[in-house]
Amino acid sequence: MPGGLSTDLYELTMAAGYHAAGRMPRASFELFVRALPPTRGYLVAAGLEQALEYLGSWRFTAEDVAYLRTVPALAGAGPAFFDEYLSRLRFTGDVWAVDEGVPVFAGEPLLRVTAPLAEAQLVETALLSTVLFQTMIASKAARVVEAAEGRAVIEFGGRRAHGAEAAMLAARAACLAGFQATSNLDAGRRFGLPVAGTMAHSWVLAQPDEPTAFRRFLDLHGPRSTLLIDTYDPLAAARSIVEAGLRPGAVRLDSGDLGPLSRAVRATLDAGGCAGTQILASGDLDEHRIAGLVGSGAPIDGFGVGTAVSTSWDAPSLSGVYKLVEIERDGAMTPLTKHSPGKTNLPGAKQVWRTGPPDAAAGDVIGLPDEAAAGRPLLRPVMRQGERIAAGAAVAELQAACRVAVGGLPASVRTRRDPASYPVAVSPGLERLASSLTGASAAVPFSPIGR
Amino acid sequence: MPGGLSTDLYELTMAAGYHAAGRMPRASFELFVRALPPTRGYLVAAGLEQALEYLGSWRFTAEDVAYLRTVPALAGAGPAFFDEYLSRLRFTGDVWAVDEGVPVFAGEPLLRVTAPLAEAQLVETALLSTVLFQTMIASKAARVVEAAEGRAVIEFGGRRAHGAEAAMLAARAACLAGFQATSNLDAGRRFGLPVAGTMAHSWVLAQPDEPTAFRRFLDLHGPRSTLLIDTYDPLAAARSIVEAGLRPGAVRLDSGDLGPLSRAVRATLDAGGCAGTQILASGDLDEHRIAGLVGSGAPIDGFGVGTAVSTSWDAPSLSGVYKLVEIERDGAMTPLTKHSPGKTNLPGAKQVWRTGPPDAAAGDVIGLPDEAAAGRPLLRPVMRQGERIAAGAAVAELQAACRVAVGGLPASVRTRRDPASYPVAVSPGLERLASSLTGASAAVPFSPIGR
Repeated sequence: MPGGLSTDLYELTMAAGYHAAGRMPRASFELFVRALPPTRGYLVAAGLEQALEYLGSWRFTAEDVAYLRTVPALAGAGPAFFDEYLSRLRFTGDVWAVDEGVPVFAGEPLLRVTAPLAEAQLVETALLSTVLFQTMIASKAARVVEAAEGRAVIEFGGRRAHGAEAAMLAARAACLAGFQATSNLDAGRRFGLPVAGTMAHSWVLAQPDEPTAFRRFLDLHGPRSTLLIDTYDPLAAARSIVEAGLRPGAVRLDSGDLGPLSRAVRATLDAGGCAGTQILASGDLDEHRIAGLVGSGAPIDGFGVGTAVSTSWDAPSLSGVYKLVEIERDGAMTPLTKHSPGKTNLPGAKQVWRTGPPDAAAGDVIGLPDEAAAGRPLLRPVMRQGERIAAGAAVAELQAACRVAVGGLPASVRTRRDPASYPVAVSPGLERLASSLTGASAAVPFSPIGR
Repeated sequence: MPGGLSTDLYELTMAAGYHAAGRMPRASFELFVRALPPTRGYLVAAGLEQALEYLGSWRFTAEDVAYLRTVPALAGAGPAFFDEYLSRLRFTGDVWAVDEGVPVFAGEPLLRVTAPLAEAQLVETALLSTVLFQTMIASKAARVVEAAEGRAVIEFGGRRAHGAEAAMLAARAACLAGFQATSNLDAGRRFGLPVAGTMAHSWVLAQPDEPTAFRRFLDLHGPRSTLLIDTYDPLAAARSIVEAGLRPGAVRLDSGDLGPLSRAVRATLDAGGCAGTQILASGDLDEHRIAGLVGSGAPIDGFGVGTAVSTSWDAPSLSGVYKLVEIERDGAMTPLTKHSPGKTNLPGAKQVWRTGPPDAAAGDVIGLPDEAAAGRPLLRPVMRQGERIAAGAAVAELQAACRVAVGGLPASVRTRRDPASYPVAVSPGLERLASSLTGASAAVPFSPIGR
């Protein structure tokens, strides 16, 4: 869980400046992804639960403040900034957000924070890493789930995740997007996720021989447990299983050419009376390899997917930003935007409307919150004056909603290769506001609409 | 910090099996990377400090054990496994490891754990994610440091890291490999790293105008602070700085075509009496873009590097594994290996010797620990019976050693594009052992030697 210091130094230098200026204006920041990775047709929003937990517990401990007093770049900040301000700081703002599991697109705010300027500023770094990471993982995982066409997919990627916290959160995001289970026990406990897993090659190696390894495992964990059969020769292992009269619930293949190998193993199992034994496959799988296996009719009943999901290996970051979009001036919220070369943002607080029949998505409109727009608004209030409005849903519930929502996207957007751009339009009111603020720069296209 | 449950379920099912079998043999596992990513000529070992902290504090809390009792896959384990074994478990093993900051190559053990079998097994997942993550980041960061050719590089990537813990550890690994500072305060505090950072675009947007934003910042944080000048028009901002008679320590550019822009800004600053004001650049930089800017003579004094380093974006995972290499049988350690198709490993406990003059590396030999080999051994004992042998070094100290060691690699291996394979040989003794164990499979080349 991130804390007060899970942030960049410049957030503190700015906060010191805002504090020194006296009365703190309220401001809104929006978190959005500038552009989708080329291999993604859609993103799946995730990480809101952890973002809200972070905001709810956010503070600078006495140790944090003592450290900050030693930072040379903060030497100009007066004692009141440390003792009166930082030490007592709590998050008192409002948050609007898109529900976890909902597909989102470039330029669409996933989160809007409205709070006294320094508060909203200081939480930038941790909100970004929290929301972007799980969104990235859920977006990758959704593709894997689609590729498996209903077969089970299990998250195995903890060992290659970017540390233990990332392993746990990746498991959550993968399950949110449709994975049936994870091997990660931390995630299983914290989020109530189903956990799965049986044995590694080391179990087999550590026993006198493979048949003994299998028998001992089934004796302890039940005759329907899963056996890993590729420590030596998978076909020989399958034969030894049927010859010993075992009836494992499944066998797992973790290497080799999984298509032909699964066929040969299936034939051996079927011929030996093990028609009820499933075949699971793992080993550097991703959505493309799974789609290839499924498409070729490989008799594989479930897939263990590791690194590809836990690191989103083909797109290991999202171009997510958290931008100041409005600030209180003379008592009123005033929309803002920067217009650095090539990085113009849409100004003002925004809402996203999704059009199309219920459970489907035909196109989105990004507009001003009070514009009358067709469609269902995606952002809803989730925190008011620092208090959560409602408890988070269980991952299983988010997963069910996610599967429906992803299923409602246009097939061209969901396709695994070269997905089409989902239509995202800017409302007339927002377009007018943007043009009025950027003046001569209005000719610069507003990144990022569409992909 | 990972805990007892930061692991995969199958480690527990196996541990239950080892426990049920009665006396627990000792076993050794080695952690190594199967193959280098195509864009890496070398890796930089990192993460050992956190790995040893994890082992030192490793336990299953009462809550952990209570959860594990509810896991269906562990229903076969008896009460003694939970109450007598897991509840009291501490890491009692020995660890040999390569020092942090030392260049390593495919197939070379970074870590060897020798412990009662279940202990060594249960820590697999967290050791892998801990050591692989920082090793991956340090390896990327070393390339960025080389590309900057002595100019300062600062780690800015927390917001795109895979969560707050990953942000903190990425900052550590980047500094270990030669980054001068990080913007991440959590890392600054925990690891004593220099922290850097000044203002974001939001600071400028939140003020009445840019000149006021600059003046207020310098008033508070000192006249030599750094100003971000690309919120609107960087050249206009540079002109306004000199016209106002300001003398900031540096200006930062975060967008645009950094080569021509830095030249124009430099000219404006120099003409206006700001020859002492440095130019910093940031914005989706990596080693290739930095090398391009440095090579073209762009007058940039330092680089802020974010996502490319904090996610190792071109190689966001390492093919690292943790393999059982020997087990106690009849009172003696017996070497082992699996030989799944394409995944044969070298058996037995190993040592790595590095040849060449001091501070240089001409080639490595992977051999048996007691073989007489030329060169300096890279693995040394760091933990004995669960106790650390020596405290970890400060990051600054590791950084200095790392820079020397990377500088001693052949230039062809250090080159940014298409690095050559560093020579890694297998000793005659290890070769004989491997052939004797794999028998007919000995023709399969032992992955992974070389790249």
